[in-house]
Amino acid sequence: MAKNSEMVLAIDIGGTFTKLGLVNRAGIVLSNNVFKTGAKQPFGEFTKKLTKEVNQLLSTIDSSDTILAIGIGAPNANYKTGEMINPPNFIWGKSIPIKKTVQDILDRPSYITNDANAAALGELYFGLGTNMKNFVVLTLGTGLGSGIINERQLLYGNYGMAGELGHVNVFSDGRQCNCGLQGCLETYASVTGIKRSVFQLLADRTTKSILRNYSFEKLSGEKISEAAHHGDAIALQAFEQTAKILGSKMADTVAHLEPEAFILTGGLSQAGALFLNPLNRYMEAALFTAYRGKVKILLSEASSKEAVLGPAALAWQGLNTT
Amino acid sequence: MAKNSEMVLAIDIGGTFTKLGLVNRAGIVLSNNVFKTGAKQPFGEFTKKLTKEVNQLLSTIDSSDTILAIGIGAPNANYKTGEMINPPNFIWGKSIPIKKTVQDILDRPSYITNDANAAALGELYFGLGTNMKNFVVLTLGTGLGSGIINERQLLYGNYGMAGELGHVNVFSDGRQCNCGLQGCLETYASVTGIKRSVFQLLADRTTKSILRNYSFEKLSGEKISEAAHHGDAIALQAFEQTAKILGSKMADTVAHLEPEAFILTGGLSQAGALFLNPLNRYMEAALFTAYRGKVKILLSEASSKEAVLGPAALAWQGLNTT
Repeated sequence: MAKNSEMVLAIDIGGTFTKLGLVNRAGIVLSNNVFKTGAKQPFGEFTKKLTKEVNQLLSTIDSSDTILAIGIGAPNANYKTGEMINPPNFIWGKSIPIKKTVQDILDRPSYITNDANAAALGELYFGLGTNMKNFVVLTLGTGLGSGIINERQLLYGNYGMAGELGHVNVFSDGRQCNCGLQGCLETYASVTGIKRSVFQLLADRTTKSILRNYSFEKLSGEKISEAAHHGDAIALQAFEQTAKILGSKMADTVAHLEPEAFILTGGLSQAGALFLNPLNRYMEAALFTAYRGKVKILLSEASSKEAVLGPAALAWQGLNTT
Repeated sequence: MAKNSEMVLAIDIGGTFTKLGLVNRAGIVLSNNVFKTGAKQPFGEFTKKLTKEVNQLLSTIDSSDTILAIGIGAPNANYKTGEMINPPNFIWGKSIPIKKTVQDILDRPSYITNDANAAALGELYFGLGTNMKNFVVLTLGTGLGSGIINERQLLYGNYGMAGELGHVNVFSDGRQCNCGLQGCLETYASVTGIKRSVFQLLADRTTKSILRNYSFEKLSGEKISEAAHHGDAIALQAFEQTAKILGSKMADTVAHLEPEAFILTGGLSQAGALFLNPLNRYMEAALFTAYRGKVKILLSEASSKEAVLGPAALAWQGLNTT
């Protein structure tokens, strides 16, 4: 690492892994670290691990280097209060003072937003969005998260909670969602959603399928993808149904925002063309005439290690605007 | 009218009436004019009438007054090209050079946008939105138009076509829409939409109703409203169904934008509490937890004459930003 470098500390808190990185203004990850979040263990355990890992990372830099700020991306994080509000799949409590916790470890100006918003900023400054003014990032993982960029700004809404596209309604009497509603988009269009679709298809049909050998807990997005690539009819149909529902709802998002592109990340997006082709077809078929042929669907090029680019972008943006 | 006044010429082109007004910086309509648009007659006829009416309006001002700019709101108008693109219910052609036509009559800096976007700007500068940063205007007339205000700016999207909420999907195999798709929101939640719902209910049920005496052509929003106010079961059910569908889709819009409020205008909104109460109830029930109890539904207070305030706001905004 060059001496006298300026950098930010970026922290991406996920349901499974927490990723740390030191990132310079050009979006280069100078050094990084990963540990298991422990979402099902007490918050105090997380704090201990985070303290240790941050200090380990800080020990890698030269004394002439400067850490200017901290950026944090976390599920259900509110940028105004600095808290994670009731994040599903975490047992840490109803409002978790995550920003304060980080600042107690390293006292720097800190910026926080939810993980999907952070991913959108990462694409805006360092990824596929560097030349775009309006786009939407969809994170298709355990759930469906979203971050909306409008005129090169994150769209926050009135209380900083805009862009919860995982909870637009698909069917009024549809699948039960963790949020308490029924028929939310993420119960169909996410890794968990496609698993549920596979189980529905296995129940409805008599078709032979390799996927009959997995419990719900053991079934994964990769296994469904792999089965589809081998021509498994149930897996292929599950991708088709998922693409139909998500494509129709993406058309609704276009009717709101008219973005130049969607950028997809997360487990479900890793199926590639198998998913992207029907998704494009269904979205186009559902688009209002004026929008047809104008909205791209792209796959994020950020590597796993580069998940810290989102929080890093947030930190650099915060420094530039304050 | 005071001498030496500064004002803009505002033109609101509707499917039935075209409204003209001279409006000052404070949003006072100094003088105004209305004529029948003639959407089913050749465009040349409209140009003749517009020329005559604009000149008549100009004859009312003092020679010391100054008209600084022109603002135009029109169906399917594109602010970038200055054209109306294929407006439904008009026989004027596929792309109508409306901005050029107006400038040929009066040579001033001219600004154009679609009628619902203009209505949103009218609320922002002179109406219920003067103290709000984020809100959505829904015009519930023949169709359903929408204008989105984000951080006190009209949200335009990538090609200036954002905010076509009339064409989000309600049911994939739903009602036929003028736009070529099926199940669009405006086929349910508009004056035409509720007429269709009344006809569906009259077909499905044996309930007595005053509305059995009207042809589709003669049935109007006012008549359905009036019947509902008199306790007509079909009319009441039609409002209930409309509120359920629109409320659910407004919840989806909140999941995108998290506005502080919706502001409703147009024929359907004039039913008042009869419509507003179930709409509020259904929207709340469909909202993601984080949004509940935070989003207001308001009825626009602009009078019919004040329809020109939208295009006027567009003109004043244009002058301020150029």
